[in-house]
Amino acid sequence: MANVKRKLRVRFSPDNVDITVPEGWSLLKAALSAGVHINAACGGNGVCGTCKVLIRKGEVESTRSDKLSAEEYQQGYRLACQSRVLSDLVVDIPVESRLETAVLSREMKMATAEAKAAELVATGWGFNPPLSKCYVELVPPTIRNNVSDLSRLLRGLKRRCNISNVSVDFDVVGNLPQVLRKKGGQVTVSTLVKAVKTKADKRKPTVIKVEAGNTAQKHYSLAFDIGTTTVSGQLLDLNRGRVLAEGMAYNGQRSYGADVITRIGYSQTPGGLKRLQQAVVTTINQIIDELVSQSQVEIRHIGHMIVAGNPTMAHILLGLDPKYLRLAPYTPVASFIPPIKARSLGIRVGKHVYLFTFPSVASYVGGDIVSGVVGVGLHQRKELTLYMDIGTNGEVVVGNADWMVTASCSAGPAFEGGGIKHGMIATKGAIQDFDIDPATLELTLHTIGGEKPRGICGSGLINTIAGLLEAGVIGQNGKFNADLKTSRIRKGGDGYEYVLAWAGETETGLDIVITEVDIDNLIRAKAAMYAGCQTLTKSVGLKLSDLEQVIIAGAFGSHIDIERSITIGLLPDMRQDRFIFVGNGSLTGARLTSFSTDLLDDARKVAMMMTNLELSERVDFMNNYVAALFLPHTHTEEFPSVARRLAG
Amino acid sequence: MANVKRKLRVRFSPDNVDITVPEGWSLLKAALSAGVHINAACGGNGVCGTCKVLIRKGEVESTRSDKLSAEEYQQGYRLACQSRVLSDLVVDIPVESRLETAVLSREMKMATAEAKAAELVATGWGFNPPLSKCYVELVPPTIRNNVSDLSRLLRGLKRRCNISNVSVDFDVVGNLPQVLRKKGGQVTVSTLVKAVKTKADKRKPTVIKVEAGNTAQKHYSLAFDIGTTTVSGQLLDLNRGRVLAEGMAYNGQRSYGADVITRIGYSQTPGGLKRLQQAVVTTINQIIDELVSQSQVEIRHIGHMIVAGNPTMAHILLGLDPKYLRLAPYTPVASFIPPIKARSLGIRVGKHVYLFTFPSVASYVGGDIVSGVVGVGLHQRKELTLYMDIGTNGEVVVGNADWMVTASCSAGPAFEGGGIKHGMIATKGAIQDFDIDPATLELTLHTIGGEKPRGICGSGLINTIAGLLEAGVIGQNGKFNADLKTSRIRKGGDGYEYVLAWAGETETGLDIVITEVDIDNLIRAKAAMYAGCQTLTKSVGLKLSDLEQVIIAGAFGSHIDIERSITIGLLPDMRQDRFIFVGNGSLTGARLTSFSTDLLDDARKVAMMMTNLELSERVDFMNNYVAALFLPHTHTEEFPSVARRLAG
Repeated sequence: MANVKRKLRVRFSPDNVDITVPEGWSLLKAALSAGVHINAACGGNGVCGTCKVLIRKGEVESTRSDKLSAEEYQQGYRLACQSRVLSDLVVDIPVESRLETAVLSREMKMATAEAKAAELVATGWGFNPPLSKCYVELVPPTIRNNVSDLSRLLRGLKRRCNISNVSVDFDVVGNLPQVLRKKGGQVTVSTLVKAVKTKADKRKPTVIKVEAGNTAQKHYSLAFDIGTTTVSGQLLDLNRGRVLAEGMAYNGQRSYGADVITRIGYSQTPGGLKRLQQAVVTTINQIIDELVSQSQVEIRHIGHMIVAGNPTMAHILLGLDPKYLRLAPYTPVASFIPPIKARSLGIRVGKHVYLFTFPSVASYVGGDIVSGVVGVGLHQRKELTLYMDIGTNGEVVVGNADWMVTASCSAGPAFEGGGIKHGMIATKGAIQDFDIDPATLELTLHTIGGEKPRGICGSGLINTIAGLLEAGVIGQNGKFNADLKTSRIRKGGDGYEYVLAWAGETETGLDIVITEVDIDNLIRAKAAMYAGCQTLTKSVGLKLSDLEQVIIAGAFGSHIDIERSITIGLLPDMRQDRFIFVGNGSLTGARLTSFSTDLLDDARKVAMMMTNLELSERVDFMNNYVAALFLPHTHTEEFPSVARRLAG
Repeated sequence: MANVKRKLRVRFSPDNVDITVPEGWSLLKAALSAGVHINAACGGNGVCGTCKVLIRKGEVESTRSDKLSAEEYQQGYRLACQSRVLSDLVVDIPVESRLETAVLSREMKMATAEAKAAELVATGWGFNPPLSKCYVELVPPTIRNNVSDLSRLLRGLKRRCNISNVSVDFDVVGNLPQVLRKKGGQVTVSTLVKAVKTKADKRKPTVIKVEAGNTAQKHYSLAFDIGTTTVSGQLLDLNRGRVLAEGMAYNGQRSYGADVITRIGYSQTPGGLKRLQQAVVTTINQIIDELVSQSQVEIRHIGHMIVAGNPTMAHILLGLDPKYLRLAPYTPVASFIPPIKARSLGIRVGKHVYLFTFPSVASYVGGDIVSGVVGVGLHQRKELTLYMDIGTNGEVVVGNADWMVTASCSAGPAFEGGGIKHGMIATKGAIQDFDIDPATLELTLHTIGGEKPRGICGSGLINTIAGLLEAGVIGQNGKFNADLKTSRIRKGGDGYEYVLAWAGETETGLDIVITEVDIDNLIRAKAAMYAGCQTLTKSVGLKLSDLEQVIIAGAFGSHIDIERSITIGLLPDMRQDRFIFVGNGSLTGARLTSFSTDLLDDARKVAMMMTNLELSERVDFMNNYVAALFLPHTHTEEFPSVARRLAG
């Protein structure tokens, strides 16, 4: 890599999150890259003064700001956005500057944070979760002031928390007399902003729960990404802007088909829609059980749920008929779906919990991409950016803060280990990386958690196939070179296959192999993604080389290796510093909007500003797709660096 | 009576409603008295020109208005508010001037409309029901315009009916794909203004139902008054502002106690609240069955339900614990209750139907009085007015457009025939009036529907006891004069009793009697009402004689005879032209607010402006009550006209 700057270590306390960054990075950028969220309301321009940090050890180069008093400056306070890293540091984030000290998704923790992590998420948002808790001590009723229990509550809410102009769920009213009297008028009120609005001052919260006593400290919510193949969830602490636990599981609907088209087909059989709905609800409930058990949070203290999913997943979860999603002219039932009680879908949370689904753009471009765009702050960026959400229902966006076009390209489940002989979800024991000795063709495998291999995850598949291609074990057509002298290549039930791990080395006691069918599935998946990016970019009169930034998202593996993804032709052949890998972008969006009503409002704007391109209606997409069914591509000139490497 | 003016007959077409009114009445007043509602936005001041009518036959004296063109004037158009009746008339109400051609409640139809009917209801409101239906023809989706079904619907709603900024019930979304495609995009959308607002432009309707095809003509709602003793309901045509059917039944909760205190007591027993709720819901369902069968309207076309009831009735209906209503400091659970799906209470209407309950003022002053005040337009009147809602849970209001005080006085069920040996609801066969020959003491009975007597209703009881008092059959202490030579007075199980109808004359084949216990019950009921009026009026520094107008409401009989009500001391001894009888005022309010969101908003204002007086906390109320336990009153000087009559 071209980057020759010194690497310096920054430790953020009180959470003791470490990151290694190049010399000269801003502290704000370092914090964001480490998943440590600092309040930076102005977006890092040094104007608002909210990103104040205390330098405990080490040296920064800092522009002096009038937002800091002389005394603060003396003590070592600096604005994170105006400070550059000059040495190893220990930085204290004062409570008023902290937003979300995210224990970032497992993928990020495991990634070597040095170079790949970057401006990962949206910035400049206020910490104002749609769900609030307010502790109120009500004055007792008297004969002179015997207003109703509800009026007394609302007056208290206004006096104590300045919340007025609320709606009230009828369920709240039912047990008010008991709740208000149980602890002498001490109650905690949960209010939720249910509807996204174009203006913050139009927000009208709804009182969804009243509890006796002070439970304000127990204030949690759920963020979920419902993928076609994988479902991921996080349990969030809404007081401290923190991820308390996270979980991931295969979508139970996989038994009814690998992709959305098959699932829609199944939904049209008698009872099919209901069965699909129950399958994903079961998966969600399993993940909730796991989150609750990891965190020791009681389910009754979970008060909100934000879900991102592609249109088919959202329709099925909500019990809406997805039939017309796959019939031209491809219309969803609704793009903006009213919030619904999660319990009514069978999700095992309190009966006061509303489930919010992200607005979608079109039949195959859904709330997951809107969530991802908001999560990574694409709608705030000036640079011309390509956002790729790599998954079974792959989605791509091109644009910036001013405009966005988007398209969906059905890649199939290969990236998530689906349809792969020994494919698996990216959890412990998944082969995620791979080194091969070019001389002996012998292997070193790297598994998640360092455990005995159990299978291969999406990113592992990319790395492995790229490595085998470079080592000449497979040809550019995706077929094995059967002439090679290695016992690892052999004939199996699906044609030739390659033994990644011998039975004696594996957890399962069986050989783990990659078959030519597996390779073919991956080639078709990467071809769909690449052709989608090409076609979408061209549709707005641009070339891939015009892109200033490529953000890669996906729930498909521990992390993605940029070079190897270029090698197989999944990513365009560009300078590596233009790529940013953000992990599960949809989940990030669901998490950040759980922390910020501002971002929830942004989601509405993003969904409305996006223009959708129906790839299935375009001849050039088909041509691009066919041309991409090769490693890396039929047109070698599009991948000059790969051509050089393969030649060498 | 003092009125010697000629009586003239006015027929209003196209509904052919007749009314006889004194010469010189304004046409607007005549129309209102006949239950024919004319748009009169300015309140009858000749300013707005909305009350335009066409004089088809007969003569009026009319102030010429610049709101009428010369051509219109030539054709015979006049402003109803500016025209006085000079002869028998036939008056056409053009469609643009019509508001609500109410077939008024049965009570009103049966009353001889001549003198007693008057300014019965609120005026000056716009016909804008909270529930709207809008027929929309949607453009089919195309590949260039493949927005979601919901977006297409909302665009159509905006284009066709100029309704935007709506919320959408999730239930609506579920079957959109089918409904939108069933008749090629022809749909009818029901929208409901759920929340009362202080400003009309803040109203945000909710889409509650979408039907295939054009069902805009089938547009109905329900208005209910839930009394402690009697439940009354009307089925309303929301297109034509008309009552299509009405029904009345005893509240099924009567089996659990006669008054609200007993019912609250019962609600505290295990399962008691649930049983009380089911009892009233059963009554409501019976009435709905009757309304539907009378009108041949299909239940699925009923889209809304507005209910007025006292706080105890409202709490129990909604399943809210009424416990603290009767414990000092007497706090309701809620005064403003969020709308709730009627089906969730067990009411057998469509699942899209919301039930709206009127806001209440205090623990014993409820939505029924707010509804009544709005219904009779007390909040629009300049005159100092006393509003009496005579019933089991009697309520009184003193005030005008600028201020109002209110109190509740538990009268017991006597006025509704409850706790009376042969008491019955005011339906067919109820003795409602009575003539007695002073010489022979023989009787002529008048029953509702002219049928054989089955019992005696509340108004019949008042008339009978007043007549017996004047005839000297009972004394001012409510005891029978046993010395009289008539076989009608005899000793029964409850002490002395008086035979109103002999077994051979009755439907039941049994003697119908009035007992001394019955008389005592009525005396205590009227004493509570009268003492309530006295105490409330005095609490604001006024005397009963200061009142300019007394509006009498109640579900208790066919109509009330003012003179006889004064005779027994129920009403203050005032000139009869100050009294207005409006029948069931709460039901009127529920009906009119079903027709006008403006009035629904007014209800909120009225509930907020009313000041409640807790009579049970006042010593003078008890003194007034005890003094009133006599016919007409211990202090004869308060009833000079009665004293003269009884002396004569």
